This record gives sequence, structure tokens and C-alpha cells, in this order.
Amino acid sequence: MSDVVKAAVLIEPGKIEIREYPRPKLEEGALLVRPLMSGICGTDKHGYQGDAVQYAGTPREIYGPYPAVPGHENVAVIEEVKSSRGGKAVDFYGNELNHGDRIVISPDIMCGTCYWCRHSFGYTWCDNIRSYGHLDCSVPPHLIGGWAELMYVFPGSHIFKISDDVSDQIAVLAEPMAVAYSLDIAKGFSSLPHEGFSSGDCVVVFGVGPLGLCHLLKARLLGAGTIIAVDRSEFRLNFVKSYGADVTIDVDKTSAQERRDMVLGLTAGRGADVVIECAGAAEVLPEGIELLRQGGTFIEVGHFVDVGDIQINPHRHLCAKNIRLIGQMNLAYTGIIPSIDLMMKNRDRFDFDSIVTHRYHFRDSLEGLIQSMRPNSMKVVIHP
Amino acid sequence: MSDVVKAAVLIEPGKIEIREYPRPKLEEGALLVRPLMSGICGTDKHGYQGDAVQYAGTPREIYGPYPAVPGHENVAVIEEVKSSRGGKAVDFYGNELNHGDRIVISPDIMCGTCYWCRHSFGYTWCDNIRSYGHLDCSVPPHLIGGWAELMYVFPGSHIFKISDDVSDQIAVLAEPMAVAYSLDIAKGFSSLPHEGFSSGDCVVVFGVGPLGLCHLLKARLLGAGTIIAVDRSEFRLNFVKSYGADVTIDVDKTSAQERRDMVLGLTAGRGADVVIECAGAAEVLPEGIELLRQGGTFIEVGHFVDVGDIQINPHRHLCAKNIRLIGQMNLAYTGIIPSIDLMMKNRDRFDFDSIVTHRYHFRDSLEGLIQSMRPNSMKVVIHP
Amino acid sequence: MSDVVKAAVLIEPGKIEIREYPRPKLEEGALLVRPLMSGICGTDKHGYQGDAVQYAGTPREIYGPYPAVPGHENVAVIEEVKSSRGGKAVDFYGNELNHGDRIVISPDIMCGTCYWCRHSFGYTWCDNIRSYGHLDCSVPPHLIGGWAELMYVFPGSHIFKISDDVSDQIAVLAEPMAVAYSLDIAKGFSSLPHEGFSSGDCVVVFGVGPLGLCHLLKARLLGAGTIIAVDRSEFRLNFVKSYGADVTIDVDKTSAQERRDMVLGLTAGRGADVVIECAGAAEVLPEGIELLRQGGTFIEVGHFVDVGDIQINPHRHLCAKNIRLIGQMNLAYTGIIPSIDLMMKNRDRFDFDSIVTHRYHFRDSLEGLIQSMRPNSMKVVIHP
Amino acid sequence: MSDVVKAAVLIEPGKIEIREYPRPKLEEGALLVRPLMSGICGTDKHGYQGDAVQYAGTPREIYGPYPAVPGHENVAVIEEVKSSRGGKAVDFYGNELNHGDRIVISPDIMCGTCYWCRHSFGYTWCDNIRSYGHLDCSVPPHLIGGWAELMYVFPGSHIFKISDDVSDQIAVLAEPMAVAYSLDIAKGFSSLPHEGFSSGDCVVVFGVGPLGLCHLLKARLLGAGTIIAVDRSEFRLNFVKSYGADVTIDVDKTSAQERRDMVLGLTAGRGADVVIECAGAAEVLPEGIELLRQGGTFIEVGHFVDVGDIQINPHRHLCAKNIRLIGQMNLAYTGIIPSIDLMMKNRDRFDFDSIVTHRYHFRDSLEGLIQSMRPNSMKVVIHP
Repeated sequence: MSDVVKAAVLIEPGKIEIREYPRPKLEEGALLVRPLMSGICGTDKHGYQGDAVQYAGTPREIYGPYPAVPGHENVAVIEEVKSSRGGKAVDFYGNELNHGDRIVISPDIMCGTCYWCRHSFGYTWCDNIRSYGHLDCSVPPHLIGGWAELMYVFPGSHIFKISDDVSDQIAVLAEPMAVAYSLDIAKGFSSLPHEGFSSGDCVVVFGVGPLGLCHLLKARLLGAGTIIAVDRSEFRLNFVKSYGADVTIDVDKTSAQERRDMVLGLTAGRGADVVIECAGAAEVLPEGIELLRQGGTFIEVGHFVDVGDIQINPHRHLCAKNIRLIGQMNLAYTGIIPSIDLMMKNRDRFDFDSIVTHRYHFRDSLEGLIQSMRPNSMKVVIHP
Repeated sequence: MSDVVKAAVLIEPGKIEIREYPRPKLEEGALLVRPLMSGICGTDKHGYQGDAVQYAGTPREIYGPYPAVPGHENVAVIEEVKSSRGGKAVDFYGNELNHGDRIVISPDIMCGTCYWCRHSFGYTWCDNIRSYGHLDCSVPPHLIGGWAELMYVFPGSHIFKISDDVSDQIAVLAEPMAVAYSLDIAKGFSSLPHEGFSSGDCVVVFGVGPLGLCHLLKARLLGAGTIIAVDRSEFRLNFVKSYGADVTIDVDKTSAQERRDMVLGLTAGRGADVVIECAGAAEVLPEGIELLRQGGTFIEVGHFVDVGDIQINPHRHLCAKNIRLIGQMNLAYTGIIPSIDLMMKNRDRFDFDSIVTHRYHFRDSLEGLIQSMRPNSMKVVIHP
Repeated sequence: MSDVVKAAVLIEPGKIEIREYPRPKLEEGALLVRPLMSGICGTDKHGYQGDAVQYAGTPREIYGPYPAVPGHENVAVIEEVKSSRGGKAVDFYGNELNHGDRIVISPDIMCGTCYWCRHSFGYTWCDNIRSYGHLDCSVPPHLIGGWAELMYVFPGSHIFKISDDVSDQIAVLAEPMAVAYSLDIAKGFSSLPHEGFSSGDCVVVFGVGPLGLCHLLKARLLGAGTIIAVDRSEFRLNFVKSYGADVTIDVDKTSAQERRDMVLGLTAGRGADVVIECAGAAEVLPEGIELLRQGGTFIEVGHFVDVGDIQINPHRHLCAKNIRLIGQMNLAYTGIIPSIDLMMKNRDRFDFDSIVTHRYHFRDSLEGLIQSMRPNSMKVVIHP
Repeated sequence: MSDVVKAAVLIEPGKIEIREYPRPKLEEGALLVRPLMSGICGTDKHGYQGDAVQYAGTPREIYGPYPAVPGHENVAVIEEVKSSRGGKAVDFYGNELNHGDRIVISPDIMCGTCYWCRHSFGYTWCDNIRSYGHLDCSVPPHLIGGWAELMYVFPGSHIFKISDDVSDQIAVLAEPMAVAYSLDIAKGFSSLPHEGFSSGDCVVVFGVGPLGLCHLLKARLLGAGTIIAVDRSEFRLNFVKSYGADVTIDVDKTSAQERRDMVLGLTAGRGADVVIECAGAAEVLPEGIELLRQGGTFIEVGHFVDVGDIQINPHRHLCAKNIRLIGQMNLAYTGIIPSIDLMMKNRDRFDFDSIVTHRYHFRDSLEGLIQSMRPNSMKVVIHP
């Protein structure tokens, strides 16, 4: 057992190095885990590119203060457990945790005592949120992201033990699928056809990278009607045809008016019931709303970082549209296991494992990041 | 019984005349009624000023094609009934209608067969909507608005018989109170504290003219916590103190930053639970959202007409805010009687009758319109 | 074109005859249609057996006053149209209706003006409800049920034109699938995991005849987790394995305690999230509730007719269980087309056509009825 | 500062003694508080009478194993604080706790890690629940109920600091008012008039002791229409007239048929929108359901203990009624402060302080318990 642990470290935007840290000593309630797979998320791309600094609406930088060990979508195997005095180490549901167990670690560590922790059940709206992959790794325990040989898991983390039949690929998708809980929120808005998300609804997803694909799949698995995917990557548009998309639209080959005509044509002239913005592009906001039917639901989940303002018309886009709009920033940690269960239940319908299109050792994180930004990839992961 | 009926007619923006029309003959299922009180609505002001042409998100003009007899918030007494063959004339709830009955007439006549009539229960999202006060009066039956001696009520209108103890003032407020059903929608979004509108919530109302006052009252009657009214009329801010407002803010005497500080100060630094936009001013959209707490609900009900675009930030205003935004264009005709009942039930708490601050004969419609645009009025009504 | 029309007529419990009626003349807005397929429902069995007299909670008999032409789950082709003066005949969504069009006819004709028609959107809670298959056929137009050569469709009926690619079998299942809208109600109870029906939920269905199968399918298509079917027919338990059931339990081969152990074993000791009662057996009520987890949802949809009382314990079954219970008597006519769409969308997953296991000419209605009561059938239909 | 602390102790059903215990030493995160007011709850009456043994649906006795210091509705002042190492003692919302602060202590201590703690936000559905007033006081720290000079507050308790302007009486009502969160659940069932609880609804409350009164008040404060109180105590029926009841019905002076006629008469023949069962009498279940309108909501909150079975008819009471039934066993600890806020906000409308009709020193607990069982009391409290 080596006392030195290697990790990929983002030193500053555009600069990744492999550094070595001492194997950390565990505080009570902590774990030391060996990452099996760690997804590359849009946040990581933005952080690497330095094109957006704030993290999740907070004033602080995505990777700041630098340096940080990236990696917040983590599947890992337990290397070491330090249980609290007297007690056993348990996961979120009370399952005992032992050396060798495979787990998913929710990215956010919450304080548990702020107003949001007290009121916003299941969602990570904590005032004092700390997120793996986005913490200063210059101070112990250093290894607080998944792009490393070993990762330190703080006490109070939301940990989910997974069974042997769950593949690493399905496990690593649990995090973005738990972001797609926005559809469950929408679903809860009403039991009647005209509000929120209902089975049979026509759903448009803007941006079908990994996050958009997860929303598309969730919509499909919850009984959506026609699903329309919009993107500029031919690879991704083709890809999602095997994962529930009925119609694909290439934004580079169509005008906004043509896209509107297509959606109206597919909905008897009414517009889509639900539009989900996963592209993180400001101009999707007015365009997406114009594709909505009256009383339709717009889910804004793609703008995790600030890419600028956009003009909208309060009358035409909001009031006269009788719109319902849901902003969704965070994941529902209570959705991690339900998301895995949902994928396992539908494994015969969709090849979830193949959603991971590329894998890189953490030594090759830079290459992985670059690949994840290319349009010919879906989920890119780091693994040892 | 005269064969000639006088009515106020809006000829073109800025021009009102008294004209005479023949007493109309009733088709089957129609009524002829004598208006007792007809409220002046923001729509009428916009129509008169000619500063907004489209009506309710449609391409057509507010008063177009001219000329029109204004008046869509109507309380009236039945003069003549022409029931359908064999049947009795009944109101929305099946109560028999006879000469002398006092009724409220919902402003919108719906086709009953379009997609929206089939799906959007209770709301007037009809594709073929026709609204009293906004129909061409140059063709028979001419008298299709409330600013007249007599008004023609088409078959298929939503009519509500009211009991003797309901004052005309309470009856005339039923229409804007039924617009405030947006709060019931918000309320239905979740049974848990963090979504929609719950008792105890801090509610900010921007614009406390008649529509804002109705929302403020509805919030108070449904158990709101601190209610903050924002306006630039000192008269209106003082007025709403007697109708449930706890705090009033004059926009002309405060900066946006000061308003934000006040709201944060009243909510332990979190922001308001619900912000209701009744001012119809585009800049309220970003400001109002910035006053919201994370996960708060923004109700956009004031932009019945287009007053221009505004810049917002999809990241900061929508996604990172975890916002829930409800656009509300129309009234719930199913809310007419519940709104009256709610006022009657709380008559000892609030002096609803005094919300009608000014009355004008329909001959003096112009004066009424001008008064309704002055900041020292609340509800201005036309009555014979 | 013959002037005489043959129909199966239920004269009294246990007695069916073929009778002849004059071809009816159409009133304005009515249709004359040729039934293609007419499902046999549990109501028909109860009516035939005479073991339950009241209809849908009303004091009147299921087939009363006798005689009646049975058949309320109808797919038909239009033979003759008598549109209202001036207008075209249209279906519920405004599609034009012409000779030769294939349609589904919702079983209930509602008055449109009673309190329930005004308030309970989408559901057939009408005070003055009239239902095809359950009306006195001794008076004109006589042919008001689907077990006949021709059927008379009253003005005001909810009619749904279907496209050519929809099979008669899928069309005839639209009605019971629209009863399964109870799951949409349950779904609407909350956006959070602990209330109503969510994706991933463990669902137990008691009684998997046609109605239970529709509920099971709906649960599956909306993303249910483990689905457990309980019945005493080996045929039906085997049948539903191909339609989404994960586990089947034969009530004749297990004790209540064993069933409870199985469900608890499949749910980590917690109990099912949702139990749906489609057996119409009173004893399922307490047993089903005991299979529920704390805060679980019980859907009571099987007791369309009264089969007696049952003892429950308000403390243990309701209060201490934190139960949510939904009684569901009627279908959602707004669910007819969404149900067809949902089946069409999932045609590759499930062989909906084969759910119709037996077909009989209306001359052989008696034989059909008897077959529908045998445990070795699923949907039995009458067709010419 | 005495080292000996006196407390009322329930030795066995019917037997209360004053005992002395050593002043407890605080573990980390615990508090020692001086009770100011401790409400007597129906649970205490049942425990004292020995007429119901199980506690909250669990197999264990209400006061078992004996002996116990009763008192779970507690307002107290902090005597001593032992914060966790390094940290400050804080209440549920993060407010610092110091000697002399006045607090409300939620009755239930939850494990925080079981399935229910993880999923049933805000509600005390914990598998390992421990409740003040119902714990074995023969072992240290002994003083785990409010009928004593001092009370020990375990780490992990939900504690709510209250401001000076909140009276002890309002604070002591926070607990039963937080049980009335069942109405918020009901409210969340739908945004449309026909489901759950909406403003204007006719509400019947069976049993208007303290719990029923809290539900009645909550309904009133949330905008209910006509509220009907049913009880057999003339004192209580008169009492609630000042707290929002519009109509009162004495069960001893009316037949079930007469009660039904009264409710139907007040609801245009439809039945009540919501019936709340706070009497804890099994026969209220069928009677209450029969008073409901179609699609109405029945809230079962009174059967905290088992008082026997009752016969219902699954067809007539559940299915044909299209009922929505909510069982509600526990309180929402997240409702404690909102309940206090709601009362404070409406202090000018209702004299909440006078709901506490009787006070007894803990030395006179027996007398207090007996008084609480008499029909001529509302809330009876123990205070030093």
C-alpha cells in the first residue's frame, strides 16, 4: 500500500497536471475510495475553458480557489472505512458499508442545518454546499475529486451502495439522471393534462449531450409521446435516435422558423407540451418558449453557468403564453437510486452502457476533456 | 320601453362617443340585461391610449375592428330572456334565470370545441375566444359591452346569478379576483413548503392598482405571511394598507438595491417566497426575480399587453434561482362565484365595497377612463 | 339498406334475445354507426348475473329499466351523419366526421350543465349521466348499445376519430385504459417520492382481468418499478407476465400472510408504494392496505358495483398508515386519445392486439358473456 | 441550584406520582430546559385511562415501558446548554441557543437515517422514533417529558427558538397546529376546484376538542367557506363559534340523517368538500364519508390510537364516491414555526391565548388530566 497517491489536478484554466499527495488519514465517518469511473460534466468543460467562473449561482469560481482535483460524478469501490464511534458506517439508506463495496457518491456535501437543507427536501440548495471536484486540493485531505487513484469521502456525504448487477456505466449516469428529476417536478405540477408533464406529451429537448440525453430518456421512460431532439452535432442527433428520440433537428441545417414549423406540424399546430433547455445557450430561451403550446412547461436546466443575457418579451413569452417555467440547478440526491433502478428496469429497451462512448485514464484527463467537447462523443469518463 | 338604446362607443383610440342602437332581438339562449356596474380595466386604458394594439396575445387589436362598446367586468340585471326551445334559461350552475335577476357575466365567450376548451379546464384559453367590450359594435346586436343602457348576452356565455346580499361592488370585483386564481395554481404546485404558494409565505406584489390589490387580497385571505406592496402611487400604497399589505414600498423613493435590502431584511436574507407582477412593466421581471428566494415562485399576470422586451439572464434568473414561474393571462370563470363567496365570507375583515373609489355614468366614460389612469383611484366603474 | 336492424337485448338478468328495431331517424347532431368491436366489461357480467343492481353509485339498476342493448366500449364506423344546422359534424377535438370514419365513442353522455360537469374536468361525474349499453331500449331510438348491427349516437356524445393505423383492438382498449387515469391522479398528488405514484414505485395490482391489466400496463408505461400481480386465475397471471408484471401471486395457493411476506420481501420490508384494487372483492381493501408502505397510495377502482361491506380499522389502516386513498369510479374521456397514443407509442414493446382473446358475433352475446366470466380469457369482445 | 428535580410520573394507567430525580448531566448537543407550558393531549388521556396501549401504530404501549414523565407539547426556557465540540448550539433554523432563550421542542426525535427519515420530508415517519413524554423515565436522564421542573432535551431534537412577542399559549398550540398540516397536504392535491382543499370549500370537522379546533382554525385561516363543527360537548360547540365555525351540530341532539340533511342543505345538496375526522370515533368514518360530496376529501387524523374496527362499503364509500382520503398520524415539524407565524399574523382576528382554558401545576397533573377529559375544557396545560 503506497503512501503516495496520484491525481489529476486542474492548476488553472487550460492546465492539468498529475500531482502526488499523501494517502490521507480518515476522520470519523469518512471513507477512502478507489474511483472506478468518474464522468466528465459540462461544468468541467466550462472550468477547463475558463469561460465561466461562478459555480452554481454562487460568487465563487467553478474550480476555485485553484488547484482542484476534478470529478464529481463518481462510482468507486471502498478502500477504507472509518466509522463513527460505536457505530457502523452506513449509506444513505442505512446499508452497511465495508471494504470492497461499490458505491455512488453524490457530488454535494450539505451542511444539513441551513434554511434550504431544512426546507428543500431532496435537493441540494444548501447555503454552505461543498462539491467534490470543486474544492481546493492544496489543503488536506487533497483527494477530493474522482480523477485520482484514491478519493476522500467526507462524513455526511450522500453515499449509495449499489448491487453487483449494476454496471459502472449505469452507475456513473445516475448523477445526470438525478438532475433529470426536473421532469418529476414538472409531473407533480398537476394531475390534469394541461399542466406540467404527462404521459403522451410532446417533449422537445434542446441540446442532446449527456444531460440532454438523460432528460430525453427520462421523458421516454415516463411515457412521453413524440420526443424531438435539437442539436448541432450530427453524431449526437443520430445517437439519441436509439435512446427514445422520434425526431431530430439539426440547428445548423434549419432556421428558427423551420424548426417552429416542424414542431407545430407535429402537434396539430399547438406547439410542444414541454421544452427542456439542456444546451446552455441563451438564445434557446425565447426560441424554446415560442415552440411551446399555450400553458406548456419550459424546463431550464442547461444554464449551470452564466453565458450572458437574452431578451424576452414578458407579454408574449410569459403572460400570454400562460407558461409554466421551472429552473433546475441541482440534482435530487434522493433520485440517485431511483434513477439507477429505472435504468436497470429498462435495460432491455435501451443500451445504457453504450452511452459511455469514451474512457480515459486520469493521466489522460486533458485528452478526455478535449474529447468531451467534441461533438462526436456522448458521455466521456475518466477511469483508472 | 324605448326601441333605441344608448351606449358609449370607442370609435378609435382617444375618441369616445355616445351612440344609439336599436334594441336588439334575442336569438335563442340569449339575454338582454341592464348593466348596474361595469369596471374599467387596464385593458380599457391601453385601448383608449392606443399604446398597445394586440388583445390577449392574439394578433388582433384590443378594440378592433373599431368601433366597440367597452365594458367586460359586468354586473347587470336581467331585462329579457329568450330561452332555448323547450328549456329554461339557466346560469353556469343551473340556476334558473328570470327577468329581474342580478347576474355577473364572465367576459369571455368560448367556442367549447377547440383543443383548449377541451383541455384547459376553467381557463379561457379558447382559440376562438370572443370577449365582451372588445367586439365590433357596428354590426348587430351592437350592444356587446357594459358601458350602455342595455347589453346583449350571447348564448353560451358564462353567467352567474348572485344573491341579494352581494353588493354590486363585490360583484364587479369578481372578475379581477378570478384572475387572481393564479395563486390557486401556485398553491397547487406542491404540498410542501418549498414550492408554490403556502400559508405563511412572504408575498411581494408589484403594482397595486385594482389587479394587484385583488392578488394581494387573495394572498391575505389564503393565509399569506408578510405582504409587501410596491407601487409609485402614494394613494394606492396607503390604500392597500387597509387591505392586507404589511409593508409598502414607493418605487420613486427607493432604489432597486434599497428595495432588495428591504425584502431580504424582512425574510432573514432569503428573499420573498412569491413575487406577483401586476404592474405590466417589463423591468419588474428581472427585479422581481432578484427579490425571490431560491425556489421561489414568480407570477406574471400584469403583461396583458405588450410593452416591450427586457433582458434577463437564464443562468442567474432562472436556472441558478431554481425558479418556478407562472404566466397567467386569463381569468378562471370557475373562480367567479368562489371569489364572491370568499369576499362575502371576509366582509367583516375588509371593506370590499370601498375598493370602488369612483363611479361614472356611461355618458361620462371618457372622464372615467381618465380617472382610472390617475394614481389617486382604485377601481373606477361605469354605472348608469 | 335494410330498414330493420338486429340487436342483442338483455331482457332481464340471465336472458338475452336478438330483437329487431326500425332503423332510427337521426336528430340534429346525431350519428348512426356500425359497431366494429364492443368490449364486454365487468359491468356487463354483473348485470347479466343480476348480482348487483345499482349502476355507478346511483340508485338505478345496471340494466334498468330493462330491456337494454348492452355494449359501452365501442369502436365503430360511421354510417350516417346528421350535423347540426349550418355546422359540420366534428369529434371531441374538432376533427370533421364523415361517412366511413372510424371512431371510438366514450360510454357516457353528460348533461354539461350540472355542478359536476362544471367542476370535475375530464371525469364523468355528471348528475344526469346516461351511458350507452345501459339505457332502456324499448323506446326509440332503441339502438343505444354496441351489441347490434347499428348503433345510435346521441348529440353531445364524446366521439374520437381514430387514424387508420390504430387497430380495432387498441381502440376497444381505450375505454378501460382511460379508467386507468387513476394513476395520473395519483401521480399528480406530489412531485416528491413519498406521495402518489412515481417512477420506480413498487405497484401491486389485485385482480388482473382486463381492468387490472390496463392499470398494470399504465403503471409500466409510466415507469413503475417492480409490479406484482395478484389473481386466482393461472391463465391471467401467466398472461400479464408478457405485459409488464414482474411477479405474480396466486391467491388460491398462498395465504394472506405469505402474500404480505412476499411483498415486504420485495420492498426491503417496507411494503408497496401503490396498491390498485381491480378485483372488486371487499376483502382486498384491508389486505391491500396492509401490503402498503407507510404513506402509500391505495387506488380503489374495482368496486363499480356493491358486493358488500368490509371491516377496517381507522387507526391501523388509515391514520397510522398515513395512507392516501383514491376512489375512482369513472373514466376520463380526455384520456381516450392519450391512451390510444400511449399504446401506439409502445406497440413494439407490448402486443396490445392479443389482449383481445375472444370474439363473438352479437348473435352469440350469451356465449361471449359466459366466456368473459371464465378465468381463461382476457378481453372478450362482441363484433359483427 | 438544587440537585434534585421533581416530576410528575405516570406509574401505570390511572396512577400518577411526584418523583424526584437527580439533575441530569448533559451530553454533547443536549439542553436542560425549564418547562413553561406543556399541553395535555388526547394521547395522554388514552394513556392515563389505559384504554389504548399502542403508540402511533407501533406495537409498543403509549406509556411503555412504564414509568414515564408525560408532556410532549412543550414550551420551555433554556437553563443549560452543552454544545457539540467546537460548535455553537443552534435551533432547527440555525439560530444560536443560549441560557434564557424560550423554545418550542418538537415531540419527536428521529434517527435521521432510516428510509422514512430519508424520504418523508417534514413528517415524523421515523422507524426509530422516540417521543418526549413517552419514554421510560426509570433510566437516566429520567426527565424526558414536560410535566416536571426541568426537562432534558436530547441532541438531534427539533428545537425552535421563539421571539418575545409570542405568548406561551400560542407557542404551546404550535404542536397541534402542526398536526393540522394535513390540510396543506390536501391543498397540494390539486390546483383545481375538484380535488383536495381549496379556498371557499365547505369543511366539516368531527370532534372539536383541541385537535379539531386547530384544524378548524387552519381551514378558516386558509380561506375555507362554510365550516361546520360536530361534537357532543355544548361547551366546545359554543367555544368554536368564536374561532371560525359557522355552524355547529350537537351529535346528541341530532340523528345521522338530520346531520346529513343539514350538510346537504348547506351545500346545495352536494355534500361537504372536506371532512376532517378529529373525534377518534370509528363510526365517524362511514358517517363522515356520507357527508362528503363526490370527489371530496376525507382527512383521518383522530385515530392516533386503536378504538376498534368499523364496517364500510368499498363501492359506496370509496369507489362510487371518487373519494380522496388522507390518513395523517404525525405532525410536520417543519410546520411548527409556520403555525406560530400564522397565529401571530391573525392575532387580531382570533384570541388564541384563550384556547388554553385551564392550567395546572405539574403537582396537580391528575386533576389536569381529569379536567382535559371533561367536555367543558379546550386546551388544558401543565405549567409550574
